[in-house]
Amino acid sequence: MNIQKTMLQAIEEELQRQVARLNQPRTSRFYEMLTYHMGWTGEGAGSEATGKRIRPLLVLLTTAACNVNENLDSDTSTSPYWLRAVGGAAAVELVHNFSLVHDDIQDNSDKRRGRHTVWVKWGAPMAINAGDALFVIANQAITGLIEHYPADVVVKAATILNDTCLDLTRGQFLDMSYEERNDLNIEDYWPMVSGKTSALLSACTHIGAVLGNADEAGQEAYRLFGYHLGLAFQVQDDILGIWGNEAITGKSAASDLVEGKNSLPILYALGKHGKFAQRWNQGPITADEVKTVAAQLEAEGGRSYAGEVSEKETQKALAYLEKANPHGVAGETMLELANMLLKRNQ
Amino acid sequence: MNIQKTMLQAIEEELQRQVARLNQPRTSRFYEMLTYHMGWTGEGAGSEATGKRIRPLLVLLTTAACNVNENLDSDTSTSPYWLRAVGGAAAVELVHNFSLVHDDIQDNSDKRRGRHTVWVKWGAPMAINAGDALFVIANQAITGLIEHYPADVVVKAATILNDTCLDLTRGQFLDMSYEERNDLNIEDYWPMVSGKTSALLSACTHIGAVLGNADEAGQEAYRLFGYHLGLAFQVQDDILGIWGNEAITGKSAASDLVEGKNSLPILYALGKHGKFAQRWNQGPITADEVKTVAAQLEAEGGRSYAGEVSEKETQKALAYLEKANPHGVAGETMLELANMLLKRNQ
Repeated sequence: MNIQKTMLQAIEEELQRQVARLNQPRTSRFYEMLTYHMGWTGEGAGSEATGKRIRPLLVLLTTAACNVNENLDSDTSTSPYWLRAVGGAAAVELVHNFSLVHDDIQDNSDKRRGRHTVWVKWGAPMAINAGDALFVIANQAITGLIEHYPADVVVKAATILNDTCLDLTRGQFLDMSYEERNDLNIEDYWPMVSGKTSALLSACTHIGAVLGNADEAGQEAYRLFGYHLGLAFQVQDDILGIWGNEAITGKSAASDLVEGKNSLPILYALGKHGKFAQRWNQGPITADEVKTVAAQLEAEGGRSYAGEVSEKETQKALAYLEKANPHGVAGETMLELANMLLKRNQ
Repeated sequence: MNIQKTMLQAIEEELQRQVARLNQPRTSRFYEMLTYHMGWTGEGAGSEATGKRIRPLLVLLTTAACNVNENLDSDTSTSPYWLRAVGGAAAVELVHNFSLVHDDIQDNSDKRRGRHTVWVKWGAPMAINAGDALFVIANQAITGLIEHYPADVVVKAATILNDTCLDLTRGQFLDMSYEERNDLNIEDYWPMVSGKTSALLSACTHIGAVLGNADEAGQEAYRLFGYHLGLAFQVQDDILGIWGNEAITGKSAASDLVEGKNSLPILYALGKHGKFAQRWNQGPITADEVKTVAAQLEAEGGRSYAGEVSEKETQKALAYLEKANPHGVAGETMLELANMLLKRNQ
């Protein structure tokens, strides 16, 4: 079994172990909300429903890549070096999922990964509480690292996670407050997206490095790798949300143009006050208009600008990864994962 | 200045310092939501709006009461012994307030302490996020204790807080799920109220004892003091919610009978399947009916039963407090606070 599969299996087991804290007679329905959201139970349960677990994978790959002496792992009589960090990996995935459950209520989204969202199935009050519980369990997972790490390392990991969570709430605030504004431009993009995407990815590599016992310089290089990886990934995602196959063809309703998302190409063009901005400010774009409006946005430079930004952030990310100097198979796998995330051919 | 006033001032300053993490140009409206909820800004700001800060006070009194050598505090050149625990005190108050913000959305309550609730002023999506932020800041306050405590003490305090928060979500789940049931009885009361009230009060005295460097037996005695104090207080509150002056007189709409609250006297009588249960199961009780229904409930033993339970829990609480053997002025003040909470004359 390759390292990625071994890690994904360990992550899933740890997530299940953590969430099982609610598996008690009187709270079985509460537990069910969480196992449903995590993709393990209910309609459409399975690998499609769980998501790719990229964030916790990034934690464990980072921890493993910090292990200079890879031979430690070839001794099959002992657990792999990275396994003791699995609580940290579970914590970031639980934070991610807590934010999804609350996001879906806030955005009034009725589907996630093709399945009904928690609030649709159990109502908003229960879904708020289910999200809160995922957040609490994330915190329990991180402090639970005390079983395997010295207390000062646990406090450091928990501090990184907490700071990241505050960034997430800031990003969410900005995202929601932008809905009421019609004076947005490119300047408004970075504070929002730093909170919403990059903060958590940078927490993954930062926590992974702390749990891998990297020195200060190594921790900083991994942190910045995750941060710029997150930005590059988000901008790529913004481009695909308008010019990707799904967005431009049959499923036009899935286009960020229809959803009115404040993505980078759009904020860039809004600042230009051209034809695109004029149409955008007139009200919601329909599925029928998607092709024309996307073409207009491309003509005004939104696509090429975002492409340049994505490339620049990708280069930064890869430079920091090189500086971090990840070791062994984990290091190679991490580079593959980064390239996959950024839709790049190596 | 007496110790209680000094502590309350330190608590308020620490809370403001913690919440100021969001005091940044782009998030000033977000920051405003939190300062409004905490009672510092906006309509009706002031001591009426902040609440009594009983929970953080209990943390600091416990820490101070663990200090065998009270003379340390009489040296005015140094900070008082309890001051380094103020981050832990702020953390429990922030958890309490996070749960209030989410509660108000879940219960559709438009007023809290006579002021509009956060979701009424800024909408539910923003209020969910504001509650999340208060919770994050609570976690930051507890890990921030690393400035004054060894890492293992910080991890212990954070673990207690996290476990408590999971109890809170369990209690909240039960409370909400009871609304759909009509087969409730006294057995259903304890699991709900343990999570909703006692868990946090027991966390206050437990964390206070950990931060006061009490030994294991001392920590356990303080924890159980807080736990039974919480139960006794809740049952007292349940009694006042039906037979208190406010509930029975002019403001009858404030009666738990009208609000349909699953409080102890009510669950007791529901299990008796008498006239009260019959009326209760027929639908909402109006303000006009309050006096009659309260009298019926009293006749069926709901009031005397709750009174006995409250007295029993009070005795347990006081026995554990005696066992904990709190020292000095802080110890005396803690006993006064407990008696005040339990509406007892000493």
